[in-house]
Amino acid sequence: MKIIVVGATGTVGKTAVEALSGRHDIIRVGRSSGDVKMNIEDTASIRAMYQQIGKVDAVVSAVGHVHFGPVHEMTGEQFMQGITGKLMPQVNLVLEGFAYMNDGGSFTVTSGVTNRDPIRGGSAAAAANGALDGFVAGAAVDMPRGIRINAVSPEVLEASREAFDGYFPGHHHVSNEAVGLAYCKAVEGCLSGQVIIVE
Amino acid sequence: MKIIVVGATGTVGKTAVEALSGRHDIIRVGRSSGDVKMNIEDTASIRAMYQQIGKVDAVVSAVGHVHFGPVHEMTGEQFMQGITGKLMPQVNLVLEGFAYMNDGGSFTVTSGVTNRDPIRGGSAAAAANGALDGFVAGAAVDMPRGIRINAVSPEVLEASREAFDGYFPGHHHVSNEAVGLAYCKAVEGCLSGQVIIVE
Repeated sequence: MKIIVVGATGTVGKTAVEALSGRHDIIRVGRSSGDVKMNIEDTASIRAMYQQIGKVDAVVSAVGHVHFGPVHEMTGEQFMQGITGKLMPQVNLVLEGFAYMNDGGSFTVTSGVTNRDPIRGGSAAAAANGALDGFVAGAAVDMPRGIRINAVSPEVLEASREAFDGYFPGHHHVSNEAVGLAYCKAVEGCLSGQVIIVE
Repeated sequence: MKIIVVGATGTVGKTAVEALSGRHDIIRVGRSSGDVKMNIEDTASIRAMYQQIGKVDAVVSAVGHVHFGPVHEMTGEQFMQGITGKLMPQVNLVLEGFAYMNDGGSFTVTSGVTNRDPIRGGSAAAAANGALDGFVAGAAVDMPRGIRINAVSPEVLEASREAFDGYFPGHHHVSNEAVGLAYCKAVEGCLSGQVIIVE
């Protein structure tokens, strides 16, 4: 399969590349590095990426930044960062990707743990993740030509243990391999409309 | 209790008014009718509403419009209507409302069935609903001064049976009373961070 991985050098996206490369032709896409460069918050840049790459069998995205902070001190603009930085980039990858997706292909987006197991300051992240989980459930029933769509929703990665120390008390840490397997299930498996939880 | 109901004359908001009035002081807010008029998509208008009304014990919102259509024919702009028309208005009511919310008060937003039981053309709605469900889960753990937050997520209302005929095949239709009870549980009860499903 020819597979686009957006956010390929990120902590999460890297697990998808590790798990899928070898068996597949992976096109790494990133903001500042990778086989193709793209600004995920710019729809024109998404279109240019697809035009450059052409037809594919799968698109995996693992991107997104979100504002963290107490909800009672949060502005609407801060909340919206999760929409413009995590939700819309991944939704637009899907909406713009149909013309380039082969029959029977798949889209895989990445959400996260904060909507099912909340942490302090995580309300904007929880909203973005809930939107992505809801989107794949809603979109799956519309998909043409046997195309599938799923979300991978990982717990905190072992690789992020130090960076997130103290923010996720009592949360499990999952291995790169476990997260990579979720992307394999989404891309190589048969599910659609699912939130594939890694915890 | 002094309770603001935003979207008070809508099909869903009306059930909250019916269920809570009598026992409480209800301030009906709507775009073109009600005790106070407000444009829910304009943050300045939300602030003006709170300034006019002053301190309250509960805010209930039942508003939102969303684009319906097949995901593979949807533009990013159409998808965003669910964010700007359903998610952000209700989030902004919360973010702007802390200064006017009495200790131990509550916020109640309204999501819907489409993220847990998808329908054709409902991907943008499912995303908006998932975002709202995620937001209340995430926000509840941050809430200061004993303030609570919940979402009411109703199935199709009996009152909307004709309007939505054919769009929700096999879905249950719920009574105004059942939906009103969910708002009572959210406002008068003790739960927080919950999605109160009516089906």
